[in-house]
Parts: sequence; structure tokens; C-alpha cells
Amino acid sequence: METHYQQQLNMLKEYLLKMAGLAERAIHNGVEALLQRDTSLAEKTIVADQAINQMEILIDEECLKLLALHQPRAADLRFITSAMRINTELEGIGDQAVNIAEGAVSLNREPQLKRYIDIPRIAGVTQSMVKDVLDAFVNGDAKLARSVCERDDQVDFINEQVFQELLNYMMADSRIISPSVHLIIVSRCLERVADHATNIAEGVIFMAQAKVIKHHADESPGEKEEKD
Amino acid sequence: METHYQQQLNMLKEYLLKMAGLAERAIHNGVEALLQRDTSLAEKTIVADQAINQMEILIDEECLKLLALHQPRAADLRFITSAMRINTELEGIGDQAVNIAEGAVSLNREPQLKRYIDIPRIAGVTQSMVKDVLDAFVNGDAKLARSVCERDDQVDFINEQVFQELLNYMMADSRIISPSVHLIIVSRCLERVADHATNIAEGVIFMAQAKVIKHHADESPGEKEEKD
Repeated sequence: METHYQQQLNMLKEYLLKMAGLAERAIHNGVEALLQRDTSLAEKTIVADQAINQMEILIDEECLKLLALHQPRAADLRFITSAMRINTELEGIGDQAVNIAEGAVSLNREPQLKRYIDIPRIAGVTQSMVKDVLDAFVNGDAKLARSVCERDDQVDFINEQVFQELLNYMMADSRIISPSVHLIIVSRCLERVADHATNIAEGVIFMAQAKVIKHHADESPGEKEEKD
Repeated sequence: METHYQQQLNMLKEYLLKMAGLAERAIHNGVEALLQRDTSLAEKTIVADQAINQMEILIDEECLKLLALHQPRAADLRFITSAMRINTELEGIGDQAVNIAEGAVSLNREPQLKRYIDIPRIAGVTQSMVKDVLDAFVNGDAKLARSVCERDDQVDFINEQVFQELLNYMMADSRIISPSVHLIIVSRCLERVADHATNIAEGVIFMAQAKVIKHHADESPGEKEEKD
């Protein structure tokens, strides 16, 4: 039979998955609102952030309860403290989704730019990072988490490209200064989302390591080899 | 005599103060590098972020050790979990200092803008928030922490003003597009620092409440009044 402690741990995992789902949807909707010029979806994305903020508080409280009422050790302790960290990062992704949605609202007030340069590309890579890091979290997949970390450099590179291209673009045509500046900011927001995904990936790797530590408790790899 | 546990708690507090000092200096140097057009100071600020990142890992490990080896409750548990949160926020301030310093390096490659609009003002309010929230943390001063939260709206307002003014400014003179965009980004970074300071302030208020809870353990204010 499941103990009350295990039930609470499972509930925390469920809350975190729900939070992850909300954050993933927020960033998806923010990007869609931008690319499809859908102001109504942008406004929905901004309002939906309240649910993410409430969920963040709930998860923090659950973590604190688990720490206060039980004495979690090893992998469980790492799971709970990682949950606190992942929670903060997911809330950060929600905030960036709001920034992107606000950018979309501003952009939709002006004529459409001929092309969005590499915005769809940076959005694509960033969203794949968010999706994969959440899969990695669910399955404790350190390898997938590492692949997320590796993609962060790619996002930094595209962001730098977007910046330079938009700068040149608006220097050549001062009528598109305002939308170009908004797009530079959106690109930076996506780059920040990729940072959050990378931080979550580090948390997932940390949790996966906890399992290793649990299996070889009190043995360093060197000691183990010597004994073998 | 101090127990080992109390020594560890005190050490955590000292580490956190050191981390806070590093973050405060980073933001100060980043802003100075910008306003004084000091590329050398900007480069030092970027390099110094490594120490902040290392300190972040150290503090996280100390928190985890305290949770794993002892069973902290009530105010101590709140202090340790708040320390983890504050640690993350301070690291975020360090990252923004790097962004501001990078902005300074880019700005110094171009002729100086005639005036920096309200950048000195947003920098001033933000730095006062960082300074005060760290004082509030050291002294457990919830009132000062609340005043930090209140200043966040002011920073958002100045940031919005800076954005609009620089947009108008570069639309009128396309030669200053590049430095103007860099300043818009710097202003957003400062606004983000103010957000981090606000988050730390919330942590300080949370810890101060923990003390109240400790003093009236197992009594709600209502229950206490009835008994009196």
C-alpha cells in the first residue's frame, strides 16, 4: 500500500507535470500569436499566466510541506529540491511567454513586416528544447536532457543573427524600426526560454545522478573500481 | 557552545552575504562601465560572473547538505529554502550584469549618444532596490523589503518611458539606431534586475513571517486573542 508520503510525492510530480504543460502551452501560444498575428490568442496567453503563477506557489508549498513533515534523503531529497528549481524555471518560461505575447500585440498594431527573418527558426529550436526537457524530466532521461543543453549554443547563435539582420534591416528602412525592435526583444525572450530549458535539463541530469548515487551509496567510482 | 548544525547555518548565511555582495558589485560595475564608457571595467564584470556562478553551486550544495544531514523545521527550514531561492535570484542579477556589460562594450564601439535619456534614473532606482533588499535580508527587515516591492512599478514605468523615447529618437535619426537598440536592451536588463530584487524581497518577507510563526507556534492569531 502507498504511504501518505509516497502519495504526497506523486502529487508533487503531478503538479509539476501540470505546471510544465501550462508553461509549454504558454510559449506555444505566445509564438503562434506572433506568427499568425492573432491578438486575441496573445491576450489569452497573457491572462493564462495567472494560473502558472498560482501553480508555482502551490508547488513551492507542497515542496516545503514534504521537507517539513518527512525527512527525505538521497534521491527523494534531490527530487524535491530539483522540483523547487524546475518550478522557478517554468514560471520564468511563463513570464517570457507573456513578454512574447505583449510583443505580438504591439506588432499586430502595425503593418506586417515582409519577413520575420529567423524568428520562426529560433522559436522552433527553443520549443523543441522545452518539449524535450519535459520528456526528459518525465522519463528521467539524462541523455535527452544533455541534448537539450547542447542546443542552447545554437539558440544563442540564431539570436545573434536575428539581432544583426534586424539592425541592418531597420537601418535601411526607418519605417520598420518599431516592429524590428519588438522582434529583437521577442528573439531575446526566446533565447531566455532556451536558458530556462537548459537549467531544467541540468536539474534532470542532477536527479538522474541521484539515482546513480543511491545505487552505489558511500562508494566513489574510484573505490568501486579498486574493489572490483 | 555552537552546535555543528548552527555553525553550518551561520556559514550558509555568510556565503549568501558574499554572493549578495558579488551580485551587487556586478550590477554596480556593469552600470558604471556603461555610464563611464569604460570597456575595461565591462570586460572585468563579464569575467567576474564566473565567481558568482561558482558561489551559486556552493550555496546550493550547502543547502542540500543541511536538508540531508539535519531535519530543519519551521524558521530554519524556511531560511534554507529561501536561501536556495535567493541564491537563484542573485545568480540572475549576475547574468543581467553581464548583459549590461556586453551592452556597454557594444555601445563603446560607437560614438556616444548625446544623452542616455532615463537610463541613469532606472539604474539608480534598481540599484537602490538591490542595496535595500540585501540590507532587509541581513536585518530580517520586512518593512524595508516591502518598500523594495513597491519600487518595482516605478522601474517598469521608467523602462516603458525609455523604450518610447529611444524609439522616437532613432526614428528621427537613423544614425543612432544601433546604440539606441542597445540602450533599450540595457533598460530591459535593469528592469529584470528589479524583478529579481522584488523576488528576493518576497523571500525576506516569507522568512520574517517564519519568525512570527515560530513565536506563536501552533496558535493562529485568532486563537491567541480568544485565550487572552
